Amino acid sequence: MLNIQLLLTGDELMSGDIVDSNSAMIAQELANIGLAIKKKVTVADDIQDLIGEIERLSSNADVLIINGGLGPTIDDLTAEALSQVSSKPIAQHPDALAHITQWCEKRGFALNKPNLKQTMLPSGCSIIANAIGSAVGFGLVHNNCHIYCTPGVPAELKKMVRDEIIPMLKKQSPDTSHHHVTRFQVFGVGESSLQKIVDEELPDWPDDIELGFRASMPLLELKLTTKTTKALASKALWIEKISHLLGDHLVAEIVDGPKPFGEHVQLLLKEQGKKVTFAESCTGGMIASNMTRVAGSSAVFDGSFVTYANQQKTDMVNVSPETLNKHGAVSQQVVIEMAKGALAKTGADIAVAVSGVAGPDGGTGEKPVGTVWFAWGDTTEIKTVCLLLPGNRYYFQHYATAVALDLVRRKLIKSKQEPRYVKERRKT
Amino acid sequence: MLNIQLLLTGDELMSGDIVDSNSAMIAQELANIGLAIKKKVTVADDIQDLIGEIERLSSNADVLIINGGLGPTIDDLTAEALSQVSSKPIAQHPDALAHITQWCEKRGFALNKPNLKQTMLPSGCSIIANAIGSAVGFGLVHNNCHIYCTPGVPAELKKMVRDEIIPMLKKQSPDTSHHHVTRFQVFGVGESSLQKIVDEELPDWPDDIELGFRASMPLLELKLTTKTTKALASKALWIEKISHLLGDHLVAEIVDGPKPFGEHVQLLLKEQGKKVTFAESCTGGMIASNMTRVAGSSAVFDGSFVTYANQQKTDMVNVSPETLNKHGAVSQQVVIEMAKGALAKTGADIAVAVSGVAGPDGGTGEKPVGTVWFAWGDTTEIKTVCLLLPGNRYYFQHYATAVALDLVRRKLIKSKQEPRYVKERRKT
Repeated sequence: MLNIQLLLTGDELMSGDIVDSNSAMIAQELANIGLAIKKKVTVADDIQDLIGEIERLSSNADVLIINGGLGPTIDDLTAEALSQVSSKPIAQHPDALAHITQWCEKRGFALNKPNLKQTMLPSGCSIIANAIGSAVGFGLVHNNCHIYCTPGVPAELKKMVRDEIIPMLKKQSPDTSHHHVTRFQVFGVGESSLQKIVDEELPDWPDDIELGFRASMPLLELKLTTKTTKALASKALWIEKISHLLGDHLVAEIVDGPKPFGEHVQLLLKEQGKKVTFAESCTGGMIASNMTRVAGSSAVFDGSFVTYANQQKTDMVNVSPETLNKHGAVSQQVVIEMAKGALAKTGADIAVAVSGVAGPDGGTGEKPVGTVWFAWGDTTEIKTVCLLLPGNRYYFQHYATAVALDLVRRKLIKSKQEPRYVKERRKT
Repeated sequence: MLNIQLLLTGDELMSGDIVDSNSAMIAQELANIGLAIKKKVTVADDIQDLIGEIERLSSNADVLIINGGLGPTIDDLTAEALSQVSSKPIAQHPDALAHITQWCEKRGFALNKPNLKQTMLPSGCSIIANAIGSAVGFGLVHNNCHIYCTPGVPAELKKMVRDEIIPMLKKQSPDTSHHHVTRFQVFGVGESSLQKIVDEELPDWPDDIELGFRASMPLLELKLTTKTTKALASKALWIEKISHLLGDHLVAEIVDGPKPFGEHVQLLLKEQGKKVTFAESCTGGMIASNMTRVAGSSAVFDGSFVTYANQQKTDMVNVSPETLNKHGAVSQQVVIEMAKGALAKTGADIAVAVSGVAGPDGGTGEKPVGTVWFAWGDTTEIKTVCLLLPGNRYYFQHYATAVALDLVRRKLIKSKQEPRYVKERRKT
């Protein structure tokens, strides 16, 4: 396998003023074609540190990806460092000049001095196209190592990695045609539970299909990677087996990046021409916000209620004061009335109502922090469940929101299976 | 200044499955006492890579902080690597054993084999207390470099850095008693605008008080660091000058970590014994969600409306169909009626109503994507403004939410100043 190393540069990366997400993105893109980063070094914008690390890393690696330092300011030192390392003097690169001239023209900007700095590159280097930004990337070979210099702006970097660097790496790589990644989004089974279920239920899981997980609250990403030609041939079978095992916990295969949960629900609602509404107490608007973050939500969502106080449960969604008095706001009876009221008031096809104790205060012996009632259904049938969710307020609200969306999803796909989160967290 | 370097270890850091936020956190904690990280290297859980980097980094640094690899599994190799590098054999450390025994007892767990692995450390090392987790940290000196090994779990690391490592570094450091950091949260002025304003309005800003920024949507963090004893003496004066310059854009000084915007608004509402409500169209529940994410919000918030469709604007908050018909949903008249309706329906003291075009679809020549009307006020006075916000749907919703909260904040502090976001983005 190619020995690929990564050198990141930027004062802001060393000061803690920004968190580096670029290297994780590069690693994920490489993983898609079966490659991995062997080592990663981060330095400030310091010419001596840059030169030292370029020299050292390039002498051990087949490929060195340098990220950052291509900008127009004097802090941006990548071209200078490469020039010194490779003894190739800095000169204006005609392709870089053509790129930036066109880039400025498109935007109606005059070409200025900082822009021109971005055209001054080690002579003889090759240009790597930047489809978005003003700074081209560039490549050269030093110490028998292919060095690719890339911009720090995440969107520019992502496009450059996908469209330019990955194809170059594929050419350099030994055959990895057996390497194939399939990803799924899963809700309601944790990473460790899922590994345990696979170990128990599919003990003959083949070694050459690697199972990986990536927690991305609230959904879990499940990744199957084939490592051999044999694995590639049997992959469909194992996908079928694990899909069967996951049942309705499997939300969708990931095609072009993972989708937010609200988008999966929106797609199902659109398919069925249905609208949804919510009556939210402890989630305080988070469910509605998760639905409406996705473009196109007006086709499936007209509006909803945040009924935080008891009086608002009565005024907004017709919960009777007697019910509130008798059972308390966090009760089966109240969420049923909330759901019915939300349906009646909005005319939506499906409603979810949520009332719980998000904490840190407000818990009682009978209804401790983490207790949450859900009611969901339509005008013909309302179902309910009470869960006891672990964790702090942040986790509680996010998880309760995801459960609400999942209950809608399961209703839409007419699921007959009991979700694991109900099995494991039902408050009896 | 101490030459401090950082070595991170973990397969999950190299695979892109998690984004490293630990190193930014360590850098921020160090910056608070005037120290910085010089270089950062990340490697997978590979004993040879670890040994090589520990040897190399420790020979150049005064301090090497190693993060990760202290866990109970066979992938956790930090102790083994340190043992080999320093030629100190692995042995059970009595303090580590005492810690984990107590840790397990507290939780009612039996001490198991993986736990015991965490007590096997290079002989003669010193223990660094872990107040939260099962794995103690440990330190030793090699190549005349102080090496501190820390856990990968962020909460455990943070506490260990603050309570254990920072005091040790202070002892090792030359005098930095002049070093003092003050941080503020600012809303409504961008980083580049703010730097420009300071350059123009405070041209004699002293070199030995460093001005730093940290974008953390939607609020901007402003950081003043004193670098000399003279700077420390004049700091109060310069804080006064920049506070005056910022005016009501200055939300608060950061005392124990930055607060979410909703918390600042909640505090003001509590002080004044007032309640707030919202009628949200394009923000789709995000404003309510931002208020209720903060514990204690029930004291200042009873409930609110997500009126996404026109019919719901009428049904939920009494917007007249004629107004909608005549002016359209994204109009001054409609947001005024939404705000009035929300006040009347909930009895809150203050309401904000928002209606806009979040995009990517739905824009027109007259009301392009990014157009958003706000109405805010109480039963005696409702004000309005229309902004044109740049960026995509994600940015639009987050920024519109922050503006809504800021309008409430400014009303509560009785601000007479026009915010820059109104000056710069008002749609005339």
